[in-house]
Amino acid sequence: MEKLKFGMIGGGKGSFIADLHLKGALFDGLGELTAGCFSRNREKSLEFGRAMGIAEERIYGSFREMAEREAKREDPIDFVIIAAPNNVHYACAKVFLENGINVVCDKPLTHYLYEAEELKRLAEEKDLLFGVTYTYSAYPAVSFMKKMIADGKVGEIRLVKAEFLTDNFAIPNEQLGKSMLWRLDPEVAGRSTCCGDIGVHAQNLISSVTGLEMEELSADLNVIGENRVLDTNFTATVRYKSGAKGHIWCSNVAMGKCNDLNIAIYGDKGSLSWSEETADIVVFNELSGCSVHYRMGTSFSSIGGSQMFRLPAGVSEGYYEAFANIYRNYMTALRNKKAGKPYEVNYPDVNCGIESLRFVEACLASSEQNAGWVTV
Amino acid sequence: MEKLKFGMIGGGKGSFIADLHLKGALFDGLGELTAGCFSRNREKSLEFGRAMGIAEERIYGSFREMAEREAKREDPIDFVIIAAPNNVHYACAKVFLENGINVVCDKPLTHYLYEAEELKRLAEEKDLLFGVTYTYSAYPAVSFMKKMIADGKVGEIRLVKAEFLTDNFAIPNEQLGKSMLWRLDPEVAGRSTCCGDIGVHAQNLISSVTGLEMEELSADLNVIGENRVLDTNFTATVRYKSGAKGHIWCSNVAMGKCNDLNIAIYGDKGSLSWSEETADIVVFNELSGCSVHYRMGTSFSSIGGSQMFRLPAGVSEGYYEAFANIYRNYMTALRNKKAGKPYEVNYPDVNCGIESLRFVEACLASSEQNAGWVTV
Amino acid sequence: MEKLKFGMIGGGKGSFIADLHLKGALFDGLGELTAGCFSRNREKSLEFGRAMGIAEERIYGSFREMAEREAKREDPIDFVIIAAPNNVHYACAKVFLENGINVVCDKPLTHYLYEAEELKRLAEEKDLLFGVTYTYSAYPAVSFMKKMIADGKVGEIRLVKAEFLTDNFAIPNEQLGKSMLWRLDPEVAGRSTCCGDIGVHAQNLISSVTGLEMEELSADLNVIGENRVLDTNFTATVRYKSGAKGHIWCSNVAMGKCNDLNIAIYGDKGSLSWSEETADIVVFNELSGCSVHYRMGTSFSSIGGSQMFRLPAGVSEGYYEAFANIYRNYMTALRNKKAGKPYEVNYPDVNCGIESLRFVEACLASSEQNAGWVTV
Amino acid sequence: MEKLKFGMIGGGKGSFIADLHLKGALFDGLGELTAGCFSRNREKSLEFGRAMGIAEERIYGSFREMAEREAKREDPIDFVIIAAPNNVHYACAKVFLENGINVVCDKPLTHYLYEAEELKRLAEEKDLLFGVTYTYSAYPAVSFMKKMIADGKVGEIRLVKAEFLTDNFAIPNEQLGKSMLWRLDPEVAGRSTCCGDIGVHAQNLISSVTGLEMEELSADLNVIGENRVLDTNFTATVRYKSGAKGHIWCSNVAMGKCNDLNIAIYGDKGSLSWSEETADIVVFNELSGCSVHYRMGTSFSSIGGSQMFRLPAGVSEGYYEAFANIYRNYMTALRNKKAGKPYEVNYPDVNCGIESLRFVEACLASSEQNAGWVTV
Repeated sequence: MEKLKFGMIGGGKGSFIADLHLKGALFDGLGELTAGCFSRNREKSLEFGRAMGIAEERIYGSFREMAEREAKREDPIDFVIIAAPNNVHYACAKVFLENGINVVCDKPLTHYLYEAEELKRLAEEKDLLFGVTYTYSAYPAVSFMKKMIADGKVGEIRLVKAEFLTDNFAIPNEQLGKSMLWRLDPEVAGRSTCCGDIGVHAQNLISSVTGLEMEELSADLNVIGENRVLDTNFTATVRYKSGAKGHIWCSNVAMGKCNDLNIAIYGDKGSLSWSEETADIVVFNELSGCSVHYRMGTSFSSIGGSQMFRLPAGVSEGYYEAFANIYRNYMTALRNKKAGKPYEVNYPDVNCGIESLRFVEACLASSEQNAGWVTV
Repeated sequence: MEKLKFGMIGGGKGSFIADLHLKGALFDGLGELTAGCFSRNREKSLEFGRAMGIAEERIYGSFREMAEREAKREDPIDFVIIAAPNNVHYACAKVFLENGINVVCDKPLTHYLYEAEELKRLAEEKDLLFGVTYTYSAYPAVSFMKKMIADGKVGEIRLVKAEFLTDNFAIPNEQLGKSMLWRLDPEVAGRSTCCGDIGVHAQNLISSVTGLEMEELSADLNVIGENRVLDTNFTATVRYKSGAKGHIWCSNVAMGKCNDLNIAIYGDKGSLSWSEETADIVVFNELSGCSVHYRMGTSFSSIGGSQMFRLPAGVSEGYYEAFANIYRNYMTALRNKKAGKPYEVNYPDVNCGIESLRFVEACLASSEQNAGWVTV
Repeated sequence: MEKLKFGMIGGGKGSFIADLHLKGALFDGLGELTAGCFSRNREKSLEFGRAMGIAEERIYGSFREMAEREAKREDPIDFVIIAAPNNVHYACAKVFLENGINVVCDKPLTHYLYEAEELKRLAEEKDLLFGVTYTYSAYPAVSFMKKMIADGKVGEIRLVKAEFLTDNFAIPNEQLGKSMLWRLDPEVAGRSTCCGDIGVHAQNLISSVTGLEMEELSADLNVIGENRVLDTNFTATVRYKSGAKGHIWCSNVAMGKCNDLNIAIYGDKGSLSWSEETADIVVFNELSGCSVHYRMGTSFSSIGGSQMFRLPAGVSEGYYEAFANIYRNYMTALRNKKAGKPYEVNYPDVNCGIESLRFVEACLASSEQNAGWVTV
Repeated sequence: MEKLKFGMIGGGKGSFIADLHLKGALFDGLGELTAGCFSRNREKSLEFGRAMGIAEERIYGSFREMAEREAKREDPIDFVIIAAPNNVHYACAKVFLENGINVVCDKPLTHYLYEAEELKRLAEEKDLLFGVTYTYSAYPAVSFMKKMIADGKVGEIRLVKAEFLTDNFAIPNEQLGKSMLWRLDPEVAGRSTCCGDIGVHAQNLISSVTGLEMEELSADLNVIGENRVLDTNFTATVRYKSGAKGHIWCSNVAMGKCNDLNIAIYGDKGSLSWSEETADIVVFNELSGCSVHYRMGTSFSSIGGSQMFRLPAGVSEGYYEAFANIYRNYMTALRNKKAGKPYEVNYPDVNCGIESLRFVEACLASSEQNAGWVTV
């Protein structure tokens, strides 16, 4: 079976996020890195590309050049990974789509909702697959919880809670490194730090697990820390179309918290909870005082969808494997599509990106009205 | 040292809450049960009183009769414990205060704020000690956290979160016992089930630990479950006078949760968290990725105030001992006051009851305005 | 219902263990302290006794005097609590039994097995009830596990593990307080520190939960820490009569451990585990990767014997309540016996004390033979 | 920088362990799979090799043929990965070493100690690098604990405990799959199931973390489960040369346990503990009642050796990444060695394999003498 060929925008030496994308895309041996634009500096791009063993003619100095020249080749890349800064996502995704090349883009998809919607239209017009890497949606625990809900174990959902707590910005600006500081800068980060960057993971997690659709929300964005203009903390109360109530709390100033993304779902039959900090365990309750702790692993793959489970219970897997899950599913879909076979969109796609932007824009609007209710 | 004499309103066979009060008041051997009105039914009152070894003349058929006759004795009770249903608290406390008898009352203190304020005025006029049994405020962990904050370990408080989650009403009304059903009945329970009954514990816990004063709040009360008129779930966003942000979530329909009262406080130097379900442990963070777990016990009594710690670390203590702590502190104050010595109000008092009613009334008002902001 | 009258040996101001006994015996209002010998110093004994409100004629200067004089009264105490130092237990229990008075004694029962056996014979001859306060055996979790095993949930037991880890003696002798130092002194503590003092709790816990009978064991006692002659750490491998294998590890030098008494039982159908440091939770497994966490509370009282459960799930109870459980059960038995009714020995009794001494003597013998196998 | 070329023995479709080796060796892009013998069936070997994109001439039907023909090429593989069944390890490693090819072999290295020692001599004679994949030794937590000990945080080690508990064989043989059954068969598995297969991980973990050298041990191997001849459970008490005491308990019949490999180290200054089931957290204690929980992550890389930490704290990594760590370190050493540069043996090597076999042989000998003491 021939490997898919892919290109990458961004990366270069020391890029944390691009390395994650690359390792994820290579993990299952389904694809190979064939082209790229790894830096706006042509020399640096060349240097990194060569180290990766890419033919020199396919190492580019701009994403525009890359999109156009790849599109004209007989053997163009099958898809491109966009792992460049957020403010490049829109323009970059657009040009690849226009040139008929499938896209996987890091989140947040764009700065504005209308941009994301435009990308979606473009992808549909051109009949292209568009993935967005909501990493946490590809943890085994997420597919497990989804299945438990589908199987009726939770009953009708009444309440949902999600939190994403970190202390990235709990310290003063002066003590922050470059790789963090840009997130506080409206020019690069957009209109929100906390809601736009980590809030969307919490929102996407709720959506991935429950499928609930938001109706209206009330949000309070807080700028905490000196010399800051963007929110570093927020709470949102959400009313879902089904009547379920939700609340979301995310913070970049929760001292001592590393990456505490967690969710709890309460229904009229049972409840489920999970935290990324104990990623292997899903807790289920249906009886007061009795919690059932499922340790994720291949033995439960029949419950949660075999694809997402890679290792036996008790053997840790995590973030890298979640990236690999997204890419494996995306590439499998792409391969099937190329072969004219039916395929499944079992990876986070452009619609997830759009839903997040709806959420962020509603939160911003609500907060400007002193946490008034805003239709999503 | 002579024991204090106390009376009790409520109780009788099988009363859960009155048994807790009684065991707490007797735990340290500082007082003895000398009088009481244990039931509105004089026969039942007599029966229980006799079993407790009380002289027949001091077993009463109504609290009014008891207050008046005790006040006229040469050896009246030193204080009365009010462990009767919520709708009796106000009238009962009032008559004892009017007759010059000190009071310890179960929470919630009254149905209306003005009633609580009247009781406070009365207690002050008569120079009486008025305790209100916020049990959780007397856990060793609470005094520990208070001291950590006082010692500057947390720095300036930025965020506070408290939750109180139970599944008491997660099942349909038909499956509930009598001892639970009255809490859903506005006639007995007052204007709120969730906020008024367990919400006040969350609010009091924040207040006990941090001392933060509420400025305004936005609350959303939800009536979840069929054939119900009072809230069984609510969220509140609180803005404190200091600028700190708070949010509170309480629920009676969180399937699988028994009694999960928890708190987290995030400052610019460190953070603290605690849950009643692991009552022995307080977690402190000041550095990302490094959590310090303090196991409560007498070895830390110097940090948290020696009074609240009864046993060495690693040996469980809990709810009964918290009641005992409140009563020990209250009785010690009363004894000192009687002896004309200085005394400390190191127990939850009438002001705590008033603060809770302010909170509940603000939540009700906000919720009626679709979660609009209301000054507390 | 009249209260039982009891006396106490030991105690006095500041005695930790005697205070626990006293609070436990008074907790449920079934008895009253009527006599005592609280110190070898008559003055101190009098002082404490008066503070307790005991009639002066029943405050004694020696346990012998007390036993003899109480026995001659028309209204003698119903039982005596022995909370004096270990090296007094034997002589003290003996004289009370000889005078026809029921006994509750702290553990370890005696220094030598033959002494304990003599006490048992005496109690039988005189038809007296003899309790020994193995506190941990009276936790709700223990009765819960016992019932789960009786119900066949675990199947045939294959493996048992128990540990009791503390760091009482992890620091040098010079840093130890008086209340700890005597445990290292063979004159007072007897032949063993670790095995005799905490090892017996681990052994009794296994016995209480599983009922397994020891056949032979191999033990290695280690004297860890400078200037010590008694063991402060030991491991034992036990072969039970049923064929089950056991191992026990106890330590006084496990730095950072407070009171980590824990047990795990593995059968051919399921397994159970519990730790005193999370006393409210029993974990049950019957399926790989799926742990059921039961939070102890009255809702499970039907599973584990309603007597031991006092509070709803999620509300902490612990050490004091375990003492209270032992005394309530002991006093209920005694009351029934006095009334000529059938009674249940549902408290740890003299046989538990004997079994522990068998265990300790076998461990000492094995360790002297370089951990050779010794029949228990 | 050119990639290293490696070959593989074993694997083929559906091989769990070979897939782990392959993903680990490819993870950091330092090498490529260039040759292999993936099955004893030449057709199957060819099929898998082709799917991997290997040139047909380098897909072999026997490991002997592969070793000899690769050795004669101008561009031979740099090293071979042996991921075939245990009973092939010795012969296979031997022939590659004899042909001058570096080796990475799965554990256990061989069936007999003398075989392992012969392989070591051969590797030294030929100046070849010999890795053995003790996966757990490459977790970030292990290097963290090692460094904490080296920094004196634990002081002199007094006690060490390690456990490896699974329930692989808690069910009857009839219910076991093929991939498990061979481990019970002496012909394939060798002389021990529990001690030889998982016991060595516990022993290696102690050795990796503490560096303690065994002096003598007493072990009790238990054959639990019907129709079995090899041990499925064992305990060992170990006396280390330094005077430290150790005990190890491993089981294949611990119902409900998935993969609970854990370690605790107690010194005279502090203690450390870790469990694979919560692989991200190392607990450190130096004060009674106060546990410091370090969440592994790049922020602590300075403490634990930066190489082993790949992701920030709070983001899970695990088993795959541990394989990748071993291969990255091995290949970095190999690359440096090829270039004539100094290199570090910071991966588990043949000496680890030998130490494990010493341990297993001592356990077998001790158990045959009814758990008598045996010099290691």
